[in-house]
Amino acid sequence: MRSLSEEQKTRLRDYLSERKTLVDSRLREHFSPMEGPAALISRAMTYSLFAGGKRLRPVLCMASASVVGGREEDVLPVACALECIHTYSLIHDDLPAMDDDDLRRGKPTSHKVFGEAIALLAGDGLLTEAFRLMSDISLLERRSVPVLLEVIRTIAEAAGSRGMVGGQVADVLCEGKVVDFPVVEYIHHHKTGALIRASVLAGALLGGGSRQQVDVLGRYGEKIGLAFQISDDILDIEGDKKAMGKATGSDDRKGKATYPALLGLAQAKDIQAKLVEEAVDLLEQFGDRAEPLRLIARYIIERKK
Amino acid sequence: MRSLSEEQKTRLRDYLSERKTLVDSRLREHFSPMEGPAALISRAMTYSLFAGGKRLRPVLCMASASVVGGREEDVLPVACALECIHTYSLIHDDLPAMDDDDLRRGKPTSHKVFGEAIALLAGDGLLTEAFRLMSDISLLERRSVPVLLEVIRTIAEAAGSRGMVGGQVADVLCEGKVVDFPVVEYIHHHKTGALIRASVLAGALLGGGSRQQVDVLGRYGEKIGLAFQISDDILDIEGDKKAMGKATGSDDRKGKATYPALLGLAQAKDIQAKLVEEAVDLLEQFGDRAEPLRLIARYIIERKK
Repeated sequence: MRSLSEEQKTRLRDYLSERKTLVDSRLREHFSPMEGPAALISRAMTYSLFAGGKRLRPVLCMASASVVGGREEDVLPVACALECIHTYSLIHDDLPAMDDDDLRRGKPTSHKVFGEAIALLAGDGLLTEAFRLMSDISLLERRSVPVLLEVIRTIAEAAGSRGMVGGQVADVLCEGKVVDFPVVEYIHHHKTGALIRASVLAGALLGGGSRQQVDVLGRYGEKIGLAFQISDDILDIEGDKKAMGKATGSDDRKGKATYPALLGLAQAKDIQAKLVEEAVDLLEQFGDRAEPLRLIARYIIERKK
Repeated sequence: MRSLSEEQKTRLRDYLSERKTLVDSRLREHFSPMEGPAALISRAMTYSLFAGGKRLRPVLCMASASVVGGREEDVLPVACALECIHTYSLIHDDLPAMDDDDLRRGKPTSHKVFGEAIALLAGDGLLTEAFRLMSDISLLERRSVPVLLEVIRTIAEAAGSRGMVGGQVADVLCEGKVVDFPVVEYIHHHKTGALIRASVLAGALLGGGSRQQVDVLGRYGEKIGLAFQISDDILDIEGDKKAMGKATGSDDRKGKATYPALLGLAQAKDIQAKLVEEAVDLLEQFGDRAEPLRLIARYIIERKK
């Protein structure tokens, strides 16, 4: 696969940055500082929400809505909710009982700053607030209400015990064990793939996509979701600690079940490139409109953090 | 206030038991055993879900729907979701980073059985599954769909950082400190009151109650929610460890901010009785139909566990 040209890189950077601004501003509004005896929780939630995330899931949701002819503003609450779910999963994942990580995106992790109890509750709060954000129908046309419920169900499924949480469970249980390829595939599909796929699906559904369009975009989401997790694992081996803002080599130390660990770096990279190629091919029917989704897919392979 | 007669007690017991059967059977269906690498999570979730809970929140939701003329079966998914949220909060609350409790309802707590990581994820899973349960519109009439979104928002608000999670945060931060009455009130209203009030509200909304009815039932819910937390704290002092299935006296040991700790047992009991009296008075407009809600309010004072 050819790499992104400098011009494409600039276009993608601008595209991501514009949408990140929209998402950040909506999140700031929703998570306005609290007062009273529990005020610390809003500081803890925003600390992690604004720790430098790329907003990949919200951007995918918006780009997917746009590709089927929907308006990006309409999906903003759901896009923000996806970022809340992603952020909660990172906070809980970093806890001592889980991966016990001290650094995330170059900053001390939540429990290092606020203590374990508040970090746990900040995660719980973010997960719950995600559903509060999604259920805000103030801006929604009445005909879209049943679709929004389908979106909430899709996202809850992807985040729940048969989705992301299930992936985390398998990840925890397999640490330090010799596992076979189907199990690694299960972990990746569930731990990361499910929410990325749901982000694309949510946008397509809310944007008014046809069943065929939603289905195709769902398959695009599945492929880039898996490719994204593989690139995470490759970066854990090859990545620059400084650029990543966290310790590298930790998967190996912890005996994590990853594609590179099981298949070697070269084969993992081949699989990843193939997934991105297939994902891009799926977008053909959408023509120029799908350019952002194409650029995002290619960016997954080239990203440095 | 007069105590419940033997006949009333029997009626309430039958009423609760019938609804518990409905709720348990719906929960069993939703949480059918999983297979594959993450199968343990479904065991962990059902372990806590079926550890002997009274199903107070689901029953309140169903009773409240019925009092405004709705059908109890229609609110069952939401009723079950409320129990999932309650159960997740107990699992996380028992974790070593929080209250560090070994026993709950006479059984070892989740992290004692499954380890901290799986207990954390079981809580996350239950919270997420709650929203999956709620967003199931397969049985819902189309006109009820916008109402369901209002219900989801109401419950997410009550469970989130400005509700239950906020109450937990304040509870954690005040442990071992001298706090004033407004702070204790804040903790109780948020930690326990908010979700109990939301349970009643959800039933009233889905049952098709008028704004006035929903408002009155919300105030009923707020009062019994607060009364329930006070009775929890009284039981922690006066209760029988065996009947409770957990250690008593722990609030005092941990320096928890409670009504009895701040005001003394006698005054706490007075306030509780007054709250229940006021709650029962609010139900007058509903006539005989509100009998279950009246009995539940009175039961709060008399319960032994």
